[in-house]
Amino acid sequence: MSSTQTKRPTIGVFDSGFGGLTVLRALLPLIPGAEYHYLGDTARLPYGAKSQQTIARYALSSAAFLLEQRIDMLVVACNTASALALEDLTRALPIPVIGVIAPGTTAAAAATAKTLKGMGVPRLASETWASSPASILVLATAATVQSAAYTRSCAALGLAAYEKACPLLVPLVEEGWTDHPVTEQVARIYLSEALAEAPTVTTLLLGCTHYPLLKPLLERTLADLNHPLHIIDSAAATAHAAARILSAPPSNLPVTTHFYATDSIEKFQRLGSNFLGQPLDQVTLIDLGG
Amino acid sequence: MSSTQTKRPTIGVFDSGFGGLTVLRALLPLIPGAEYHYLGDTARLPYGAKSQQTIARYALSSAAFLLEQRIDMLVVACNTASALALEDLTRALPIPVIGVIAPGTTAAAAATAKTLKGMGVPRLASETWASSPASILVLATAATVQSAAYTRSCAALGLAAYEKACPLLVPLVEEGWTDHPVTEQVARIYLSEALAEAPTVTTLLLGCTHYPLLKPLLERTLADLNHPLHIIDSAAATAHAAARILSAPPSNLPVTTHFYATDSIEKFQRLGSNFLGQPLDQVTLIDLGG
Repeated sequence: MSSTQTKRPTIGVFDSGFGGLTVLRALLPLIPGAEYHYLGDTARLPYGAKSQQTIARYALSSAAFLLEQRIDMLVVACNTASALALEDLTRALPIPVIGVIAPGTTAAAAATAKTLKGMGVPRLASETWASSPASILVLATAATVQSAAYTRSCAALGLAAYEKACPLLVPLVEEGWTDHPVTEQVARIYLSEALAEAPTVTTLLLGCTHYPLLKPLLERTLADLNHPLHIIDSAAATAHAAARILSAPPSNLPVTTHFYATDSIEKFQRLGSNFLGQPLDQVTLIDLGG
Repeated sequence: MSSTQTKRPTIGVFDSGFGGLTVLRALLPLIPGAEYHYLGDTARLPYGAKSQQTIARYALSSAAFLLEQRIDMLVVACNTASALALEDLTRALPIPVIGVIAPGTTAAAAATAKTLKGMGVPRLASETWASSPASILVLATAATVQSAAYTRSCAALGLAAYEKACPLLVPLVEEGWTDHPVTEQVARIYLSEALAEAPTVTTLLLGCTHYPLLKPLLERTLADLNHPLHIIDSAAATAHAAARILSAPPSNLPVTTHFYATDSIEKFQRLGSNFLGQPLDQVTLIDLGG
């Protein structure tokens, strides 16, 4: 192989489980011909209820494994790890690291600006919006909300966010109840509580990679509550951001995907295919020593 | 200290989280004057959806830490670890190891025998009952049900069990919704499905240390379904079994308790006190390398 031949890009995608497969799904058509290594740290999931220290430790050991696969870029396709471990990862890794928070926030801010403009809200100094009543509602895990990462990220774009922890939504999605009366009732409780606290929101940002599977149900519930919102999920926004920062030219080679999990491969394959939108044929079980 | 002085018993109690504190709560009055070391492996919880191999690995590293505290006996106060790692633990540890499955089953079998006798069901060979329609309904996590540990344990006592996985009950208890309409609806779904499959059950065995907090709600739901059951939780049964096998005589020293967690101490203290029934003052954060 000649040394002038361009190496095709190798991209690492990391999540605590299979939710991040929605990000990989968005990446595949955007960066075709790349080699992908997806790691789901299923033995230690969920990250959403754990502490910053523990989440950072888990994320670093997962990233170390992906580095051994010679990745050129790491996509942290997990909101909790993006919220709590992105700085540690960026500091420790010699390659670009991209999380889901900033891309998701940017997309939500664009949607919000459009809505506010449509409503005739004058655009003053952007700081004014940040100190105004919240315009973006973020649904996320307890750990993500506690980190206030979305609030800071929105404030940096001059917007105010209201973050609502929804600990039951991940278990409900994993139970397969994505279109179930119980999930509707739980969503109605979480959304009603959030809208009572932040009645001025116009955009809903799904701050967890499990939640896109609930999008139809959330839309229906918001319509019932007579408070429709523009729903943004960060998977597509993150994939676009990754494509922008990857300097390697597109490759003509067929896409290659490798999947790794730290626990039960059977469950990863069964549930993961719903998130990826295609079957997961080969998953390798790895041990991160946890 | 003279060598003839009797050492007071030191008891290790292990769970993936704080659910096992219901077992410790039952132990305290039964074996007073003992020294207790309770470890909640909160960084790696929940065990309930993970594989046998992973659960055994987690349980062994937790047990190794407790051995370093010089315990005389290990109580595995976690149904999932009891179902999937008890053999590994018993083989690896030089001290008695007691799980929650056998004591819980024994208590459920006694209640069932009493009910069946009261109903005039003739006691033939005990094998007859095991091959008859199920008389014990076990609610548990997915991993516990998949292990079929309760089915085997009941069969050994000549009884047939029907096991029902209830993945949403732990998150609902951790959300604090122990008396909430959503939890009632979820319990009604799980119980209706189980009773449709196993209409002859007379005893309900709570096969997860989180479930005792749902006992009033489950009793109410069963009454609504017009199918009252004798509810058994294994915490008390396990504590009695531990007291029976501990050869050390009772000590007059005041009880000493040490608590360790592998993740966020704040959450352990806040939620754990509901399970222990008293405040958890001092919790030490430890790192099992996971």
